[in-house]
Amino acid sequence: MKVITRIADLRRLRRGLPEPVGLVPTMGCLHQGHLSLVRKAREENPSLVASIFVNPIQFGPGEDFIRYPRDVAGDLALLEKERADIVFMPEAVEMYPPQFDSWVEVGGPSGRLEGASRPGHFRGVTTVCAKLFNIVQPARAYFGQKDAQQAAVIKKMVADLNMNLEIVTLPTVREPDGLAMSSRNGYLSLDERRAALVLYQALTLGRGLWEREERDAGRIRREMTRLIQKEPLARIDYVSIAHAETLEELARVTPPALISLAVKIGATRLIDNILL
Amino acid sequence: MKVITRIADLRRLRRGLPEPVGLVPTMGCLHQGHLSLVRKAREENPSLVASIFVNPIQFGPGEDFIRYPRDVAGDLALLEKERADIVFMPEAVEMYPPQFDSWVEVGGPSGRLEGASRPGHFRGVTTVCAKLFNIVQPARAYFGQKDAQQAAVIKKMVADLNMNLEIVTLPTVREPDGLAMSSRNGYLSLDERRAALVLYQALTLGRGLWEREERDAGRIRREMTRLIQKEPLARIDYVSIAHAETLEELARVTPPALISLAVKIGATRLIDNILL
Repeated sequence: MKVITRIADLRRLRRGLPEPVGLVPTMGCLHQGHLSLVRKAREENPSLVASIFVNPIQFGPGEDFIRYPRDVAGDLALLEKERADIVFMPEAVEMYPPQFDSWVEVGGPSGRLEGASRPGHFRGVTTVCAKLFNIVQPARAYFGQKDAQQAAVIKKMVADLNMNLEIVTLPTVREPDGLAMSSRNGYLSLDERRAALVLYQALTLGRGLWEREERDAGRIRREMTRLIQKEPLARIDYVSIAHAETLEELARVTPPALISLAVKIGATRLIDNILL
Repeated sequence: MKVITRIADLRRLRRGLPEPVGLVPTMGCLHQGHLSLVRKAREENPSLVASIFVNPIQFGPGEDFIRYPRDVAGDLALLEKERADIVFMPEAVEMYPPQFDSWVEVGGPSGRLEGASRPGHFRGVTTVCAKLFNIVQPARAYFGQKDAQQAAVIKKMVADLNMNLEIVTLPTVREPDGLAMSSRNGYLSLDERRAALVLYQALTLGRGLWEREERDAGRIRREMTRLIQKEPLARIDYVSIAHAETLEELARVTPPALISLAVKIGATRLIDNILL
């Protein structure tokens, strides 16, 4: 496994890789969710590149860029074990030299939910993905369903700009009690860790109502909201039932629909979702 | 020579093309300026793709998209003669289906001059170029120095987003009397055609002053402006002496500098430039 920090070095190595190449872009601090992507990519492609890059331009002012968890040594050990061929781990200035000023902006799904709560977030995500795709030239790139909106936005970018790769999304990996795996779970105190369960409970409640033929999205949102509000450590950012691709809010629930939510547990903002 | 209108068909054909591929993106109505690009691309690459696409998203409201000159039959005859392998000629809806909403935006040089006079213009140019580059996957794409700012913006996009191609710019081709070749010259009446010479005359005056050691950019701009104002059919949009890459206006002239101007001759807006 080669660890590469320079774009030029990656390009050189890239030429010698057997096709097709699978890419797993990450911000590091890898958990089982990431590893499920890495394993799938390893299975489907003769060559596997993983990137570790805490992308500054997708964090807003006041967000957790500085304290975002990092564990490079642990990440490299895990990726070595999963037989990654290359780990790309650039410094921020390598990706964004001082004159950098070109951006990929996706409309539609990127304005809602996370995009509304975190202005500029998806512009940072799509721009770094465009760069990584151009640098690594993968045939497939792997993303987790946990960040459902991110996956929808990236798929839209790839389709609209005719990029030459397939975006593969894999199911959210959960702790035994249902909490979605996230690098940000590490921020939680013991009390908060328990309170964080309310996200998955609310999603399960929503799905349950839908399975019992409830089609009124407003009613499902209200029931979910009520459940979350019973948890004193939780503060709702949004509870959404939306079209799974456009992310437009639904009045009546019809598949493909995405139930998603963002909830602050203490100081930690968590997101989760399930597809109907 | 194959004429292709569908992206999927182009992708299929593209796989069989010997590498590297040269791309000449055009809006059609080809003149000697385009042909110099086509010939260079033919010379430098085993495979040559030319595109003809009057790109609606780079025209502002009230600009000349509808009446922009078109001559597909003439263009195809010229490209056949230059031994293009493929001509890509999509309809607008093929490039921009109804849900299309992803954009490449370049800051810096794209805000000035043409960007200031034509808001959104360069966003349209960079977005269509990103799409064409992704569809055709050329090793080199060829642009005329006549659109110097366009070339600077595209080069910046390619560098910032790590796109895998080289942007080649070739010198402006001129009529015997100095007028830069442009598809828009066809709009000019006989009187306007004569008046249009003032663009090149002003550029020549500017260069002459520089060659005679004038370094005060303001003085050169003023002399050029005075010359153009003597022409009753001409109305100045801008006269600029700027850094050739950033396009920031200079106070003192030092190479690499670009003298550029945009002048309306009657209803026709023309641009031209020379590099110092």
